[in-house]
Amino acid sequence: MLAGHRTWIFDRKPVIVATGTVGGPFEGNGKIPNDFDLLHNDMWLNQDSFEKAQQVLLEDACQTAIKKANIQKDQVQFFLGGDLINQITPTSFATKTLGAPYIGLFGACSTSMEGLALGAFLVNHKGANCLLTGAVSHNAAVEKQFRYPTEYGSQKPPTSQWTVTAAGAALLKDKGDGPVVTSATIGRIIDMGLTDPFNMGGAMAPAAVDTIETHLKERGVDPSYYDVIATGDLGHIGREIALDLFKKHETWISEKQFQDCGLMIYREGQPVLAGGSGAGCSAAVAYGHLLNLMKKGEIKRLLVVATGALLSPLSYQQKETIPCIAHAVSIELGGEK
Amino acid sequence: MLAGHRTWIFDRKPVIVATGTVGGPFEGNGKIPNDFDLLHNDMWLNQDSFEKAQQVLLEDACQTAIKKANIQKDQVQFFLGGDLINQITPTSFATKTLGAPYIGLFGACSTSMEGLALGAFLVNHKGANCLLTGAVSHNAAVEKQFRYPTEYGSQKPPTSQWTVTAAGAALLKDKGDGPVVTSATIGRIIDMGLTDPFNMGGAMAPAAVDTIETHLKERGVDPSYYDVIATGDLGHIGREIALDLFKKHETWISEKQFQDCGLMIYREGQPVLAGGSGAGCSAAVAYGHLLNLMKKGEIKRLLVVATGALLSPLSYQQKETIPCIAHAVSIELGGEK
Repeated sequence: MLAGHRTWIFDRKPVIVATGTVGGPFEGNGKIPNDFDLLHNDMWLNQDSFEKAQQVLLEDACQTAIKKANIQKDQVQFFLGGDLINQITPTSFATKTLGAPYIGLFGACSTSMEGLALGAFLVNHKGANCLLTGAVSHNAAVEKQFRYPTEYGSQKPPTSQWTVTAAGAALLKDKGDGPVVTSATIGRIIDMGLTDPFNMGGAMAPAAVDTIETHLKERGVDPSYYDVIATGDLGHIGREIALDLFKKHETWISEKQFQDCGLMIYREGQPVLAGGSGAGCSAAVAYGHLLNLMKKGEIKRLLVVATGALLSPLSYQQKETIPCIAHAVSIELGGEK
Repeated sequence: MLAGHRTWIFDRKPVIVATGTVGGPFEGNGKIPNDFDLLHNDMWLNQDSFEKAQQVLLEDACQTAIKKANIQKDQVQFFLGGDLINQITPTSFATKTLGAPYIGLFGACSTSMEGLALGAFLVNHKGANCLLTGAVSHNAAVEKQFRYPTEYGSQKPPTSQWTVTAAGAALLKDKGDGPVVTSATIGRIIDMGLTDPFNMGGAMAPAAVDTIETHLKERGVDPSYYDVIATGDLGHIGREIALDLFKKHETWISEKQFQDCGLMIYREGQPVLAGGSGAGCSAAVAYGHLLNLMKKGEIKRLLVVATGALLSPLSYQQKETIPCIAHAVSIELGGEK
């Protein structure tokens, strides 16, 4: 059902029956190591390129979800996913391994919820009984492509963020045990004219605010409906800006309730500057840490708002601004099905 | 409704109420200039980069479809689209201009039908009343990124294809006048181990054959059901391989019925080697030339099978094979609605 202009309500409540989360060594030393199903202790994952290592992260996340759901690989009807590498090759190559029909997405760091929104829509309307969706990023692969090879040792300003080495995948079914996907709001592009690729959080904050406020209005709920509203990867800077905007708009979201995946993943003291980012950040934190809190009953209603900065190294060099987007998906404890 | 594992039947028959097709100078000199709504006579479209020119192609295609449908821009509930440039920036920037909520896709040259399949699913299940989907490519932007700047004058083998400078967009509504979208089959990745980026048609042909044969089986129709089965951009080489595979599998598709968008767009004598390609190729030919033939009653049932090669310059340099995919969407004359 369409509620408002860009919010879908999923009346049949697709179930997240299993997830898989995989991280790298830096994530293993972070704040939530126990929320990863699998942690690798080197950045190469026994591959000969960082892009192939990124591919393996996603393959492992999908394989883990399939195993936990106790299904066969060929029961997966579709895979919806993407990443930030040019032409999303790590995702396409991982999907080749998976063998499932493939809907390739590009939403930068918003890909996780773009995939969950579309996947839930497909399952809700019987376009699939069982599908996988996921996203992945790899610090070294992304640094090399968007900035400089890490070996150059180039310095970054404190507003910049740290791309996580992680993948998260969710297996959605029309029935089963697990939290359910109840609604989704698709983002529109918000571009406030910022051009600094070392301050993505600041650029993305207005897009997150636009999507959250639209979601609350179109779904017809107060912010207090959600125990946690978790943005993808605004980091410290972006989160502060978003909180300021909420205050200005009189949208009453509490600081406690308003969390950020990019701030949940690393410990104090890890040199991540303004926080974590990358397509795998919200995927791994939502499908690992946050769903684990739901399992424990500590969160009953969750809104994940994955944020994406839709720039490229070339658009930056051509002095374009940074168009940003955010997609929101609500996940709730569903009771009996 | 799900028919088989990866085919959707659209019982509410979403309508393509209008389309917009835009081309460059080389396309204006091609075989079907009258099937473009707008032709530009220079490659720059008054922009200062080829990427911005590509953005304008898509903006123009969307604007044309909106104008022909006689609706306002803000009635467009979603835009689904993508292109081949890194991080699909031309599409994201064009969507910023459009202002619609945005579902970014990556399917290389299969993007056009990936978007139409998902868009039709959304409209069919009341996830939208009105949405736009499209794809775009620009010869100079793509050559620069995937191969060499054209100024280098590097030579290509006869198996290689010519990236079209074109965009195509379709406006889908739940009701209205126009051909209707009746079903879609999502592709899976087929990779026969080919590694030559100058022979995309050969690499993609098995993916096209897999999707077409699956579509016919899952929809439960003979090849003769369709007046035309049009692949995205197999070119001469890929088309021959596909016809050979059909013969081998005893899938009886006639040579006359089996067309290719990459072969329809240019005249004999234009130096396009094995034929046209690019994300805009199937979008512009399907939404222009083929739908015009439907309007004239020369085609009543059309299957468009957009093919994509999911490689990147980096995956090629790293000696990876070329994973390929094809998505099929059927468009039919719908009668009264």
